[in-house]
Amino acid sequence: MALIRSRVDSANAADCPFPLNNLPYGVFSTAGEAPRCGAAIGDMIVDLAACEARGLLDAGGTFAQDALNGFMALGRARWDAVRARLTELLAEGAAPDLPLVPMAGATLHLPIRVTEYTDFYASRNHAFNVGVLFRGPENALPAQWTHMPIGYNGRASSVVVSGTPIRRPMGQLKGEAGPRWAPCERLDLELELGAVVGAPSALGSRVSVEEAEAMIFGYVLLNDWSARDVQAWEYQPLGPFQSKALGTTIGAWIVTQAALEPFRSPGAPRANPLLPYLQESRPGLYDLEIGWSMNGQVMARTNYNVMYYSSAQQLAHHTSSGCPMRVGDLLGSGTISGPTPDQTGALLEMTGGGKTPVTVNDAARTFIQDGDTVALFATAKGEGYTIGFGPCTGTILPARP
Amino acid sequence: MALIRSRVDSANAADCPFPLNNLPYGVFSTAGEAPRCGAAIGDMIVDLAACEARGLLDAGGTFAQDALNGFMALGRARWDAVRARLTELLAEGAAPDLPLVPMAGATLHLPIRVTEYTDFYASRNHAFNVGVLFRGPENALPAQWTHMPIGYNGRASSVVVSGTPIRRPMGQLKGEAGPRWAPCERLDLELELGAVVGAPSALGSRVSVEEAEAMIFGYVLLNDWSARDVQAWEYQPLGPFQSKALGTTIGAWIVTQAALEPFRSPGAPRANPLLPYLQESRPGLYDLEIGWSMNGQVMARTNYNVMYYSSAQQLAHHTSSGCPMRVGDLLGSGTISGPTPDQTGALLEMTGGGKTPVTVNDAARTFIQDGDTVALFATAKGEGYTIGFGPCTGTILPARP
Repeated sequence: MALIRSRVDSANAADCPFPLNNLPYGVFSTAGEAPRCGAAIGDMIVDLAACEARGLLDAGGTFAQDALNGFMALGRARWDAVRARLTELLAEGAAPDLPLVPMAGATLHLPIRVTEYTDFYASRNHAFNVGVLFRGPENALPAQWTHMPIGYNGRASSVVVSGTPIRRPMGQLKGEAGPRWAPCERLDLELELGAVVGAPSALGSRVSVEEAEAMIFGYVLLNDWSARDVQAWEYQPLGPFQSKALGTTIGAWIVTQAALEPFRSPGAPRANPLLPYLQESRPGLYDLEIGWSMNGQVMARTNYNVMYYSSAQQLAHHTSSGCPMRVGDLLGSGTISGPTPDQTGALLEMTGGGKTPVTVNDAARTFIQDGDTVALFATAKGEGYTIGFGPCTGTILPARP
Repeated sequence: MALIRSRVDSANAADCPFPLNNLPYGVFSTAGEAPRCGAAIGDMIVDLAACEARGLLDAGGTFAQDALNGFMALGRARWDAVRARLTELLAEGAAPDLPLVPMAGATLHLPIRVTEYTDFYASRNHAFNVGVLFRGPENALPAQWTHMPIGYNGRASSVVVSGTPIRRPMGQLKGEAGPRWAPCERLDLELELGAVVGAPSALGSRVSVEEAEAMIFGYVLLNDWSARDVQAWEYQPLGPFQSKALGTTIGAWIVTQAALEPFRSPGAPRANPLLPYLQESRPGLYDLEIGWSMNGQVMARTNYNVMYYSSAQQLAHHTSSGCPMRVGDLLGSGTISGPTPDQTGALLEMTGGGKTPVTVNDAARTFIQDGDTVALFATAKGEGYTIGFGPCTGTILPARP
């Protein structure tokens, strides 16, 4: 697909993350004004609440709210209609004046009220590498892993927007003579893509992969900060708990499924056929370069299409028991890792469990130190344009003993 | 403590679950009227919204809402003041007319909007018994179990009020030649007490056991329905997921901490000292007989004071990483099981993993069959009065293949 030229000049540069082809949704505020919904275009934000107030589009008043949940709840037909209308309004040469706000002067907020948060485990490289470190090579990949997208319920209350500082947690760490209470010594990131669920399902009902795909509103960058030492001591048999509750950072911009449509890509080869309820009729992954940096230095790059399961498959599986989904549910893809260390989405993997330090701006690192800033990035490349997700960053504050 | 006599005669019977000493909160509706908050007294419900409308008490208008979250958010001083005022209004010989509604004619609703739901694993008997069945006797009790109250995040969207039918789930079951897709064949209950969190904590902050106790508004009966065959196949290494998302039933009445105060009881003996952040200065458990029946036949009775960790300890641990808690969070105690089969809170334990059937009204049972009704009950006995929780029941509907 080629660039759609916009009246906002900055949106027409080939490397601008927010061309008219993208139009991600977010929530922003300006000095003295309440948070409201907007869409990114070039270096500007279209004030969607103001657009609606001027009668330029119709979202049932939901854009004046401080989260996109209300808009999402209007359903896919409205998502499509508003996107089409915005594409018209923002096109090169379009007529009406628009309420455009410079992004540089705006504060970005959490784009959704996160209803519930689920984190999956869908990169085979990551699952194998971490499995070796936690359980040894013979038990690395769990027996069910190639048959179902396994995941666990995370903690929605701990999801924060890009830029929010993250406090190093205290926790129980395994010791020689029983556990000790100490600051986490193995603080890590997890490079993920988060799928935002925009439509509900009922208790006792299941959705197919196709229906699941239609329920996904869009995607955000997601860093599932992890306390590996807390995790190692706590996680059997009920799974990770406090090791994953210190904070999960998401990007402020939700890139819609519509914007990613041209980048559909098959995923990793299958080890075995899936049960019918997980089979997809077309690829549900995207050709999306994704990576992370620490203190400005790029540490790893890989592609979202290394994953074994798509968000639609994960969502379908999530309803397999009849579990109801709600507008605003957030599904983490699982850490995205390619096969080599410079493609890994977590320090645990990159450093072989802390045994092989890496160099960050001439300093050795095994895990994250206080003051370190981790930033995720992702881009899809179209013809003459780039789809970006905006920043997803967090800086670590020292523990409070 | 002795019975406090009420103007509502039925509340003065020694075996009435709702004497004036209890005063549990719930949400009810009557024909043609919207759900609102009430308190149970004898066989009646005090319409708290109507009480406030008449100027009899002050809850900031929150009792007109369809969930108790608004009232809980007012804080503990208001909880205490309203309880004291209600005790006055409902006392024997009290003057003003009160809006009392017969419980028999009312519909009971979910008493809170469940913000997030966490399920713990705090009965040593249960953890050991289930551990033997899932992992063998040598690995039965996880190494960290006597050091921390382990738990996992459950699915808040699947929490329903007593009386809601529960659909047997479909799921992936382990088979000889790979997994198969089938109705759950090992459907089970879990007998639990749920603690309702009524006060928030901030991201990055921790609460002590004493602070945690002050955050707990009250307790409900809780049945965490479990698909054991789905669980066995899915649960390693990330914990139970779809096996626990088919539905969790809670009772309609929240028994306040104040009502349970006279029943504080030490718990199970400790295998080792706890780290300071988990030590409690006074017992956080209650002497509360709790059990369950199937199709009217009592199957097991035990006591909540067999537990190894209190809800306050669980809540303190929940914030140990800095995880923020919110008003309306629900914490399941974990299955409550005593040491003998007739004291177990799950069929998995009672039948030795399905190997030793039990008899229910002359029919053999290993796990739950379609049409079976499971009911939980709990009572604390004071001097001349009983604290009850009301019903917590669910009937199983056949799977939808």
